[in-house]
Amino acid sequence: MRATLLHAADDIRVEDVADPKIQRPTDTLVRIVLSCICGSDLWPYKSLPPTDDPRHMGHEFLGMVEEAGSEVRGLRRGDMVVAPFVYSDNTCAYCREGLQTSCVHGGQWGMNGVDGGQGQFVRVPYADGTLVKLPVGEDSELLPDLLTLSDVLCTGYHAARTAGVTRGDSVTVIGDGAVGLAAVISARLLGAEQIILMGRHRVRTDLGREFGATDVVAERGEEGIARVRELTGGEGTRRVLECVGLKDAIVQSFGVVRDGGTISRVGAPQFTDVPFGFGDFLRNITLTGGVAPARAYIEELMPYVLDGQVRPGRVFDRTLDLEDIADGYRAMNDREALKVLVRP
Amino acid sequence: MRATLLHAADDIRVEDVADPKIQRPTDTLVRIVLSCICGSDLWPYKSLPPTDDPRHMGHEFLGMVEEAGSEVRGLRRGDMVVAPFVYSDNTCAYCREGLQTSCVHGGQWGMNGVDGGQGQFVRVPYADGTLVKLPVGEDSELLPDLLTLSDVLCTGYHAARTAGVTRGDSVTVIGDGAVGLAAVISARLLGAEQIILMGRHRVRTDLGREFGATDVVAERGEEGIARVRELTGGEGTRRVLECVGLKDAIVQSFGVVRDGGTISRVGAPQFTDVPFGFGDFLRNITLTGGVAPARAYIEELMPYVLDGQVRPGRVFDRTLDLEDIADGYRAMNDREALKVLVRP
Repeated sequence: MRATLLHAADDIRVEDVADPKIQRPTDTLVRIVLSCICGSDLWPYKSLPPTDDPRHMGHEFLGMVEEAGSEVRGLRRGDMVVAPFVYSDNTCAYCREGLQTSCVHGGQWGMNGVDGGQGQFVRVPYADGTLVKLPVGEDSELLPDLLTLSDVLCTGYHAARTAGVTRGDSVTVIGDGAVGLAAVISARLLGAEQIILMGRHRVRTDLGREFGATDVVAERGEEGIARVRELTGGEGTRRVLECVGLKDAIVQSFGVVRDGGTISRVGAPQFTDVPFGFGDFLRNITLTGGVAPARAYIEELMPYVLDGQVRPGRVFDRTLDLEDIADGYRAMNDREALKVLVRP
Repeated sequence: MRATLLHAADDIRVEDVADPKIQRPTDTLVRIVLSCICGSDLWPYKSLPPTDDPRHMGHEFLGMVEEAGSEVRGLRRGDMVVAPFVYSDNTCAYCREGLQTSCVHGGQWGMNGVDGGQGQFVRVPYADGTLVKLPVGEDSELLPDLLTLSDVLCTGYHAARTAGVTRGDSVTVIGDGAVGLAAVISARLLGAEQIILMGRHRVRTDLGREFGATDVVAERGEEGIARVRELTGGEGTRRVLECVGLKDAIVQSFGVVRDGGTISRVGAPQFTDVPFGFGDFLRNITLTGGVAPARAYIEELMPYVLDGQVRPGRVFDRTLDLEDIADGYRAMNDREALKVLVRP
C-alpha cells in the first residue's frame, strides 16, 4: 500500500510499504477513507534529523473495516469507524476512568509496527476498544466533521472540560489554530457566556466568531493581556484554554486568568519549565489539561456533529490526494492552510 | 504594647510599639490570648536584610474583643474570636466564592499600619468579615486546637480540598512539618483510604500516623518515589499534597502522582519555574493549590475541633511567653521544635 513517511525535516514522501495484515485476534484491518494533517505533525516535519528508519505519519483517520480478527466482537467488514489518535484496550483501569491515553496496552499510530494514519490501510490493535462505529456511509457529507472526533474536536473539548467550563462562564482561548477553534466550539457547547479568542489570523478568528467567540483579541504579550483584562472588568477570565504549546502562550495564560481560575493546556508543550511561582500561587491558579483522551469523548460529541449543531469540519480549508500530501505539510507549515484533509 | 519585630535575619526582638486604636468604624480591637510561629515566618527570619523599618511579625492568633467599631454588627466586647491569616471583607465577589485571599479590601497582618499577630493587641480591619467567634472561654483547653484554624489546619485542608480528595482515595503528603501533618488530618477527614506521609523526622511522622497516615516513607528523591510506587501497585497516588515549597518537593510530587492525578501545593514556593514538561503533559497531571483562604474553611472545620474528632493542636510541642519568642524562632529554625505556641 501507499503510506506517508518522514525521512528528515522537510523530506516527506509517499511510498510503497508492506500491506498490513491481522496479527492478533483483537486486531482489525481498516481501509482509510479520510485522514488529515495535525499541527503536531509539523513538529517532526520541522525538526526530524535524517534517519534510516523513517517515521510513519498520521494519527487521525476514519475508514471502513475490511477484516476483523477472530476475537473482535463489535465490528465487522463494512462498518464505518473513526479512530482516536491513540489506540487503547478500553478495559484497563485508566480506560475505565476515561484516561485512554494512559492505557496499559495502548500506543501511538505509526510506531512499533502499527501503521500511521496517512496511508491507505491501518492495522488497528485492540479494535473493540479503539474504534467507534459511525452511523453514516462512505459518501456522507459529514465525514470531515466526523473526522475531527479523531483528535482536534476532542482535544479542544478536553481543554474545556478539564478547565471546568460551565454555563455562564468566562473563557479565554489562546491560539486560533484548529485546536483553538475546536476549543471555542467546546466552550460554547458547555455554555460559556464570554469566549475571548486570542489570535491574529483574521480568516481563522472570523471562523472562531462563527463558532461562538464573543470577542477577538489580536494583540499579544502585555498588550494582549491588558486587552483581555479590559474586556473582563480588570479581572481576567475564569478559564483559559491554552491551545498553542509555546512558552509565550503559557505566560499569556497566567496573565489573563482570574484569581482562583484554571488554565487548561492541550497544546503539546515545547518547553520543560512552566513559569508558575509565588505570585500565581497567591492567586490560587490551577494548571491542568494534557494530551486528550479522545476515545473518552467520541460518543458524547458525535450526536452534536450528526445533528449539525456543531460543524467542526469547517477547520479543513484544503483537500489533497494522498500522493500530494507533501504540499499539505508545506501549506500548513507556511500557514497557507489551516488544516488539510487527505484522501487516499 | 509589646510586639515582635524582625530587624534583620536572626535579629528578632520584642519591643514597645504604639497601642493600636480603632481607626475605622469597621475595625475591632482584639486582645491576643494565644498566637504562634509559622513555618513561613522562618523565611524572613533566615533572609531579611537589615532594615530601619522592622517587620511586624505574626499572622496566627486568637483572642478577646476589647472594643468594636461603630459599624461592627456581629461582635462585641468579651467575644472570643479566631482570625484567619489574612483579613478580608467577606462580601466582595472573591470572598463570596470562598477566595478571601484575593479579597479586594483584604491584606496581611503586620503590613500597612495593621498590627502583627505576635504581640499583645491587634486592630482588625473588616472585623465582621475577618473574625470568627469561638464558643469557648479564655481558659478553654481547646485553644491550641482552635488556633490551628487560623492557618495551619486550614492550609492542610486547602491542599486536600483543591486536590479533590474523596472517599477511598489514595494520597501522598509530602512534608512532615505542621502543614503536612494538618494535610494528613484533612485527607483522613475527607475519607482517604491510603495516606502515605513522606518525611524523615520520626517524632513527626509518628504523630502523622496517629493523625491517620497509613504509611510513612522516609526516603527522598528517586528512592522515595520508588518506595511510594511500590506501595501503590506501581502507579502512584491519585492525589499529592505538597506541603514544603521547595523545588525538590515538587519534583517528588510529579514522581509519585498517578496518571490523571492532581498535585496540590500549599507550601509557599521558593522557586519560580515548575518542571512540568511534555512527559507529565502526556500523563494528564493537574497542578493546583495555592495560598489557603482559611476564612472559607473555619466554620466548616470548627465542629470537628470542638467535638475532639481532630486534635490539630498536637502539632504544638512548645509554649513560650511573648518575651521569649526569639527562642521559639531559633528552636523552630533548628528543627528542635515543630511549632511553637506564644502567650502574650
